[in-house]
Amino acid sequence: MTSSTRHPAEFDPIALVIDLHERNEPQRIRDFLQEQDEVEVAHLLESLPPRERQYIWEFIPAACQADVLEELDDGVRNNLLEALPEASVIRAIREMEEAELVDLLESVPDRLAGAILKSLTEGARTAIQQRREYPEESAGRYMDTEWIAIRADVSLDVVARYLKRLDALPPHTDGLMVIDREGYYQGKLSLSSLLTGHGSKRVADVMQVDADKVGVLDLSEDWVDLFEERETESIAVVDADGKLVGRIAVDDALDIIRELADHQVMHMAGLDEDEDLFAPIIPSAKRRMFWLGINLLTAFLASSVIGLFAATLEKLVALAVLMPIVASMGGIAGSQTLTLAIRGLALGQISAANTRWLAIKEVVIAGINGVVWAVVVGLIAWLWFHDPKLAGVLAAAMIINQFAAAIAGLAVPLVLERSGIDPALSGSVILTTVTDVVGFMSFLGLATWLLL
Amino acid sequence: MTSSTRHPAEFDPIALVIDLHERNEPQRIRDFLQEQDEVEVAHLLESLPPRERQYIWEFIPAACQADVLEELDDGVRNNLLEALPEASVIRAIREMEEAELVDLLESVPDRLAGAILKSLTEGARTAIQQRREYPEESAGRYMDTEWIAIRADVSLDVVARYLKRLDALPPHTDGLMVIDREGYYQGKLSLSSLLTGHGSKRVADVMQVDADKVGVLDLSEDWVDLFEERETESIAVVDADGKLVGRIAVDDALDIIRELADHQVMHMAGLDEDEDLFAPIIPSAKRRMFWLGINLLTAFLASSVIGLFAATLEKLVALAVLMPIVASMGGIAGSQTLTLAIRGLALGQISAANTRWLAIKEVVIAGINGVVWAVVVGLIAWLWFHDPKLAGVLAAAMIINQFAAAIAGLAVPLVLERSGIDPALSGSVILTTVTDVVGFMSFLGLATWLLL
Repeated sequence: MTSSTRHPAEFDPIALVIDLHERNEPQRIRDFLQEQDEVEVAHLLESLPPRERQYIWEFIPAACQADVLEELDDGVRNNLLEALPEASVIRAIREMEEAELVDLLESVPDRLAGAILKSLTEGARTAIQQRREYPEESAGRYMDTEWIAIRADVSLDVVARYLKRLDALPPHTDGLMVIDREGYYQGKLSLSSLLTGHGSKRVADVMQVDADKVGVLDLSEDWVDLFEERETESIAVVDADGKLVGRIAVDDALDIIRELADHQVMHMAGLDEDEDLFAPIIPSAKRRMFWLGINLLTAFLASSVIGLFAATLEKLVALAVLMPIVASMGGIAGSQTLTLAIRGLALGQISAANTRWLAIKEVVIAGINGVVWAVVVGLIAWLWFHDPKLAGVLAAAMIINQFAAAIAGLAVPLVLERSGIDPALSGSVILTTVTDVVGFMSFLGLATWLLL
Repeated sequence: MTSSTRHPAEFDPIALVIDLHERNEPQRIRDFLQEQDEVEVAHLLESLPPRERQYIWEFIPAACQADVLEELDDGVRNNLLEALPEASVIRAIREMEEAELVDLLESVPDRLAGAILKSLTEGARTAIQQRREYPEESAGRYMDTEWIAIRADVSLDVVARYLKRLDALPPHTDGLMVIDREGYYQGKLSLSSLLTGHGSKRVADVMQVDADKVGVLDLSEDWVDLFEERETESIAVVDADGKLVGRIAVDDALDIIRELADHQVMHMAGLDEDEDLFAPIIPSAKRRMFWLGINLLTAFLASSVIGLFAATLEKLVALAVLMPIVASMGGIAGSQTLTLAIRGLALGQISAANTRWLAIKEVVIAGINGVVWAVVVGLIAWLWFHDPKLAGVLAAAMIINQFAAAIAGLAVPLVLERSGIDPALSGSVILTTVTDVVGFMSFLGLATWLLL
């Protein structure tokens, strides 16, 4: 092993902290954490087992604890907060941003949420409760309330002089909000126009009157793409009357995109999108137990199909040897179609108008691949069991199951989506049930009919 | 059906375009496309079958075609370009950004890339070739070369007057680049400091001297998180000597995050991360054929394990009925561990120091869930086949396979990652092989040993 000072690329903060915890060296931990910014500390906490997390938490400077909580994955944050003493939690959340605090309050146990609410000032509590009335995922939940507002009838020089009286602009300020006397949103004065426009021009002459705005109740799926499309860093949030009430910024979009991304991959494995890798064991085991239980039901369904053909299997044991191939190849092909379809639905690329073309495409692909691999599988089975009729039945079942996989891979997510059920979560269970049942049924059924 | 004008929420541009294509109404298509921005057109192209894509492409105003190409998913863009006549492609790419064009040239067929290169001016060709020398995914590939540079020794008033001579700032300008006479990067003057600082102050007094910068060869995985961490919209790119050579912006980060996100979910199904939902059928079938072939090998491996126990199966057909349950429950549990581990690796949360804790966690969870579901499965099998010894063997095999699934679910991605192989792509094939082989081997092996 080489020393970490000579090879900084191999320096592993996770190993360092675990080591310092084992040797119980609080001062060195304190010194180390002092040098890290909140993002580094958050990443470290996400990479530590529960005991080490709790241990180092108390060494994080109190002024930084709220920032670290804001950076943590939701799953990790909740597991940490539940493990900490209530007083530590209340101290840590004191400096948190309102939007983050609302999110936190909704995901921690009620008892802790109650204690946190009680610790807030009257004003903060009211603000939080107002924000909680906006639906989850709405702009009202994400928006911040820091912005610079100006009137349309002043000159750029007046705006510039006004800004000189401030210490700094709020983060992600790429423009100023133009509002009228009553607070109605009128447009955006981009910093670019402010800086390059002649000082005698009026705001009204250079502002974007058609600047994007989102309603306070609009859901994130409807506005998250705007940041990519319009090359903007902040968008005004208005109420039903058109009054300016907040501002969403590009960092919200980054968070939302990351979450959407995790959603499909985690849900397809029956996991929560913010599942904590180092979650405590017992709650993790419970959550996964449920998913295994669901899958057990479908496994028994497939078994009972096989059970129907017990008499056939008794006479021809080669069927038992070959039957998993039919089911497995169906499952693989089906999950390719399913993955594409779930992503297409998430991106809004599938509509009633193009479903027919998609269905034809998937069925033709199933036909091509079904025939190609049926021939290969059939030849191998023939060589293995010296039974051309068995090989033929296997090949035919393969083709049937490839078609079933293509149709189910497309139809299952479409039907689930239309019924308001998340296709990422339940799609693969239903699909595998279809490909197992059709695979066993077609192979053993054809064998019973043709080989006995 | 209701009319789309009365119910704008139900208006489906995909249906409209397919309908106008069928009725061959070029003027109405042209009018419709004229009203859409490049993002809307790109999304529409992504949602259309190949024939409709080609048909409407020629109606997109020539001035917008480059912008649309930049917005398209790579897979869709390549499929479209390959289907278009060469002259159309060359016309379309004329206005494309350099970084986008380099990316395009690397992914279209060589013949088309050659024709595009030949159509460029000498200067553009040289710039492209220089950029292609940077490694894929490096900052040099993503950076743009539009920025505003200033000197450190001038006053803010001078900077402000200089900006007044420009028409606009480049997109995503949240600060100006401070460089010295030789072009070395010295820091960033944020627009916030420029606008709020006193005009007589010098740039050197208010600029961020520790502003982030990335090396032109640094890979995106090393800098993409900076945009989230530092609340910044643009970062300077410097060469090995520290000279300013470009600028990466938050829209690159959004793209990269989306791609990373698609990577795991698509690769776990053996698909390309930018797989086009409406790709032409034959190439799609070929790509998926390969993946089915790989999986067929593993299916035959599982079959051959069953084949070893043909004599046992002949005597006790209940084994054939129950054996898929053991394999399936192992596969489900294993893929949960695998999904978590691949995501943890991608996020850099797994290191040598915490692997032991993770392994213990996964094995304990496997133990808990293995025992719980073994009891359930055992009881059901006992009731079904009235054979307590068979039920016991089934339960024991379930527990063994849950342990195998946990160990393989964690070890397979770790070993693949260390060997430089993408665990998202090959992890699930290997895992299923392990859970199938261990599942069949333990169940049929125990049965042969204990029941006959």
